[in-house]
Amino acid sequence: MGKIYGVGLGPGDPDLMSVRADRLLRNAKHVAFFRKPGRSGQARNIVNGMIPGDANEFPMEYPVTTEIPLSDPRYNELLAEFYEACTAHLKALSDQGEDVVVLCEGDPFFYGSFMHLYSRLREQAPVEVVPAITGMSGAWTATGDPITWGDDVLTVLVGTLPEEELTRRMAQTDALVVMKIGRNIDKVKRSLQASGLYDRAWIVEYAQMPNQRVCKLSENCEGLTPYFSIIIVHGQGRRP
Amino acid sequence: MGKIYGVGLGPGDPDLMSVRADRLLRNAKHVAFFRKPGRSGQARNIVNGMIPGDANEFPMEYPVTTEIPLSDPRYNELLAEFYEACTAHLKALSDQGEDVVVLCEGDPFFYGSFMHLYSRLREQAPVEVVPAITGMSGAWTATGDPITWGDDVLTVLVGTLPEEELTRRMAQTDALVVMKIGRNIDKVKRSLQASGLYDRAWIVEYAQMPNQRVCKLSENCEGLTPYFSIIIVHGQGRRP
Repeated sequence: MGKIYGVGLGPGDPDLMSVRADRLLRNAKHVAFFRKPGRSGQARNIVNGMIPGDANEFPMEYPVTTEIPLSDPRYNELLAEFYEACTAHLKALSDQGEDVVVLCEGDPFFYGSFMHLYSRLREQAPVEVVPAITGMSGAWTATGDPITWGDDVLTVLVGTLPEEELTRRMAQTDALVVMKIGRNIDKVKRSLQASGLYDRAWIVEYAQMPNQRVCKLSENCEGLTPYFSIIIVHGQGRRP
Repeated sequence: MGKIYGVGLGPGDPDLMSVRADRLLRNAKHVAFFRKPGRSGQARNIVNGMIPGDANEFPMEYPVTTEIPLSDPRYNELLAEFYEACTAHLKALSDQGEDVVVLCEGDPFFYGSFMHLYSRLREQAPVEVVPAITGMSGAWTATGDPITWGDDVLTVLVGTLPEEELTRRMAQTDALVVMKIGRNIDKVKRSLQASGLYDRAWIVEYAQMPNQRVCKLSENCEGLTPYFSIIIVHGQGRRP
């Protein structure tokens, strides 16, 4: 049976991919990746010029992203059907003895979409996960300041959480990362203000990519789109 | 002036280093690294066979690690002096036009020792930080299960925190990573038990290295040394 590789691409700079990811990509025969319908796909864009020109590409197009609220049972149903169909396709390739590289933005096991294929495939086919530099690591490096010192507690939150929960958890942490900001940006900003972290918060858009932007939230980051952004608040722990 | 590179080595497998780190190491003329006196040093061990045989090596030996408690003011004084001396040496090389690679285990800005040189050097010399796969990412990948799903909150704690604080924070999170375990292992275990996470906790020793061990804490991990270990509790969030 062929092997299915969930390959973490890291934050987006090919120079920051692992040596293993680089090798797997340059020798790939089958390449699968998620994207929104009508888009080229962020993961696919990152590997432009790296994968062989004659590789078989398998775009996996989300049936729904934000058109239906997460709370609607149809959301889960549609996504489950979609993941089953992707799984069947990858399994069929593996059964034919073909190795497949699945492109994963960031680190596959950290809020990644590949996990939904992995949990279905792991009992049926050989699967290997190649870890990667997380998007948040790319973001805090871009700010030019360490995220955690000494005994600092780091909390990672997603912008989809309720406002009161965001505020409560922000107020209790030393260092903070907020992922999945997008349309939640105003709520996240209110929570940062209510928890007293707003003035220390940075937003990093397209971390480690050519169009990277780094900005203090309090400095009115004109034109910055929150959809590929991560918010960072640095810890202030012990430093001899 | 020469450039000082804080190069993240990732969890320990050279195949998981970034393409940029690999290139910097293989072309390095000056290589600096931290170690305990009398030891070869974990960071230096990882790059064995990668750095040129004629590179100038500069081991930076900690004057104190666990001999003096963190609370003793002498601890901070001794470390501050040590970091100043290292900084002066690196600055002198940079002034001579020499590039220097400083080896950093894991990701340099995530609880790394390099940060203490970085904060002193950044105003005096050109410094570049190369992010890397964190040790925790290497550890959760080794467990074969994703760390965070959907809206999961991830908390990263260090074992040096007081027991009540560890317990309180563990009880409030979805997914958990505990770093800097070492001699705090018994305290950390008690906190995991008190917070109800013990039965879901894994310990990973030497993640992504040839001597890697992965073990459920509840399954009596015979002979496992906590000094190069990370504890992982996986989130259980939304999964269509």
